[in-house]
Amino acid sequence: MERLFDEELTKLKERLLRMGGLVEEAIERAIQALKEQREDLAGEVFRYEAEINALDVEIDEMCLRLLALRQPMAGDLRFITSGMKIGVDLERMGDLAVNIAEQAVELAKLPLLKPLIDIPRMAQMAQAMVRDSLNAFVNRDAGLAQDVCCRDDEIDSLNHQIFRELLTYMMEDPATIKRAVALMLVGRHLERIADHATNVGEDVIYMVRGKTIKHNIDGQRSSVCGGKK
Amino acid sequence: MERLFDEELTKLKERLLRMGGLVEEAIERAIQALKEQREDLAGEVFRYEAEINALDVEIDEMCLRLLALRQPMAGDLRFITSGMKIGVDLERMGDLAVNIAEQAVELAKLPLLKPLIDIPRMAQMAQAMVRDSLNAFVNRDAGLAQDVCCRDDEIDSLNHQIFRELLTYMMEDPATIKRAVALMLVGRHLERIADHATNVGEDVIYMVRGKTIKHNIDGQRSSVCGGKK
Repeated sequence: MERLFDEELTKLKERLLRMGGLVEEAIERAIQALKEQREDLAGEVFRYEAEINALDVEIDEMCLRLLALRQPMAGDLRFITSGMKIGVDLERMGDLAVNIAEQAVELAKLPLLKPLIDIPRMAQMAQAMVRDSLNAFVNRDAGLAQDVCCRDDEIDSLNHQIFRELLTYMMEDPATIKRAVALMLVGRHLERIADHATNVGEDVIYMVRGKTIKHNIDGQRSSVCGGKK
Repeated sequence: MERLFDEELTKLKERLLRMGGLVEEAIERAIQALKEQREDLAGEVFRYEAEINALDVEIDEMCLRLLALRQPMAGDLRFITSGMKIGVDLERMGDLAVNIAEQAVELAKLPLLKPLIDIPRMAQMAQAMVRDSLNAFVNRDAGLAQDVCCRDDEIDSLNHQIFRELLTYMMEDPATIKRAVALMLVGRHLERIADHATNVGEDVIYMVRGKTIKHNIDGQRSSVCGGKK
């Protein structure tokens, strides 16, 4: 009975890691579609999303079954409820990758506004946050989770910088407005993906330490994140 | 023991309804701040959000305690895990109301681009979705929850219309770009609030019927929502 429970927890971890891997791939393809103006790659993102959605349903049912049949206590209970929440966050990230792919399809029809440098960089940072937040979860590593939360500020400021730059493009030449707005939205989608990875990080910290760091995080962050805030 | 459990479930419902009420108020104030260019009202939104966040933590702990101590089965189990997820959605809605208030603060410093009609209308629709999704939850009313999900399409198309209109403003007069982009973001925040209300609706349907309608919802929607899709 005990061993069976451990096997089921291991399976839950595997499914969540698999889901996270698919989210990373989806972001990768969406950004590549954007950068290289390739509509065919956007189609791949839609396929990844379908797989992510199927995993979301599977994980949710797996967690409900574990709660109902095993009636876990303390640490295991928090592990399973965190797993449920993380599944929701990963599913939303999949949706956001699709939103990026949709912009890529629109932008593929128009001349490239400029070679994209910062957006792919932001995407890489977001992907790393997704990966690390899930590793933090399966290894119950609060330190790594904290590190993920701290990196969210870097993403925010990079997005802010991209936003400002695109605003100047639009003001100098109204012919760029449509494309600039589309790229602003991409920046926002990436920022939200990073927000979801941060949620995962916060869930992990709560799971490990039994204390929330959500809300009023800023005061704590400046000390934990080396004053970077 | 049984009666105590019922009392705790009732308390959980009350806390979630209270949280939903605060989210509605926060949206109301944020939109009023935007419309009347009043920075002081934006400050109220920040205070609402603090209260929403405190409830989020309380609800999460309440649900964990119920799961650990009462070891509920079947319907009650799903009710509690849905409650946890709904708390997360409500908390995000509070964040989005704050994002709107932040734009209101920025826009209060600039001349009004135009009298706002569609954005307040969109906000009212979103508020009603929040209210109805929570009523659907506490009354386990899958029909009302379905109705909330159907209304999401109306919000999306209204946002799309607002987006298009603002785009024409920007193209005709680059001096409006900053303000138009800010209003686009407000539209997007409202659309996301409606998305979260839709998530709540989907959770309720799953809770009541034990079957998910998430993903591949479109095929179902056209039949359930009277072909409005």
